[in-house]
Amino acid sequence: MHLAADATDCGFYRIVKPYKSGFLMKFCSQCGTRVELRIPEGDSLPRFVCGACHTIHYQNPRMVVGCIVEWEDKVLLCRRAIEPRYGLWTVPAGFMENGETTYQGAARETLEEANARIEMGPLYALYNIPHINQVYILFRARLLDLDFKAGAETLEARLFSENEIPWDQIAFATVRNTLTHYYGERRKGEFKFHMGTIEPLKK
Amino acid sequence: MHLAADATDCGFYRIVKPYKSGFLMKFCSQCGTRVELRIPEGDSLPRFVCGACHTIHYQNPRMVVGCIVEWEDKVLLCRRAIEPRYGLWTVPAGFMENGETTYQGAARETLEEANARIEMGPLYALYNIPHINQVYILFRARLLDLDFKAGAETLEARLFSENEIPWDQIAFATVRNTLTHYYGERRKGEFKFHMGTIEPLKK
Repeated sequence: MHLAADATDCGFYRIVKPYKSGFLMKFCSQCGTRVELRIPEGDSLPRFVCGACHTIHYQNPRMVVGCIVEWEDKVLLCRRAIEPRYGLWTVPAGFMENGETTYQGAARETLEEANARIEMGPLYALYNIPHINQVYILFRARLLDLDFKAGAETLEARLFSENEIPWDQIAFATVRNTLTHYYGERRKGEFKFHMGTIEPLKK
Repeated sequence: MHLAADATDCGFYRIVKPYKSGFLMKFCSQCGTRVELRIPEGDSLPRFVCGACHTIHYQNPRMVVGCIVEWEDKVLLCRRAIEPRYGLWTVPAGFMENGETTYQGAARETLEEANARIEMGPLYALYNIPHINQVYILFRARLLDLDFKAGAETLEARLFSENEIPWDQIAFATVRNTLTHYYGERRKGEFKFHMGTIEPLKK
């Protein structure tokens, strides 16, 4: 999962070469028959379709929700205890679950990864990552107390001021970009919403 | 699919009773064995798990992407030719597909539902709908020409000025709320981003 391309801030429509991959599906989850990949009648994209029970298995992008957790002039980062990017630093974030809102998901991830309690703030960034079928949604949030510690998927959770940020050990370009914008705007005293698209790293 | 509760604008964390339902899965899509619903080791939520090949089948919320399409003082609405809410009016919107960005998805839906070409504008609203595992993402957009017409899932596509909007025939509360905000803000000459959560209609 390479996310090392730069994000482009853009409020306007932008062409990114679509890559339609999803999860490979072999059997129908409703009846257990082998599925085929074909364009259903009236549709325009190939789907996994069951010839026996006629279920069409749609696949859609997933949301990764997280937050920039603030404490005075510092931000909370987590060092990853899982792949990809084991050992590198990131903001608390993860896949949004069914039954929750985007802010609940971001708060849950912060609790799971850093045992940190927060007050959620405004939406800060939305990044499309079409080649891996993901959308990143990041909020600003305020840390409520210093009683945090690494969760199961985290080696270490720590507060960093701007000059302490380990820029060459940040796990994802999305996060590096977001932190760069964040500190630049904090110096100016005005935050704005960021939207962009992450493209695959050119080989 | 009842979406008739009011949206609440809110940039802060808000508790909504979680309803963890997803799609019912009976067979493993990788090996065809019957799956069971249980909490995998190290996890905290029940998932469909295959006892034979050990695949964990995660289910996540889906995004509905769409736009408020502007032409002079008018907005483009589509009368639905499909359930739910057959015959009622809505903005062009639909499920985001793999391989596209949120803006590409919104533009594609506008083309599919109203054969309308647009220039995409800024993000206008994000609504969480946790009880049906959806997130609505709506942009403002500018209609490029008047050569539009109803697509296959639309009975009729039409431009409406504010006093022509059929308020009692709008398909979804999300859309009614968004249009109310939109016209109020347009009168003031300043648009802002809206975020909220839609709860189920109280019986």
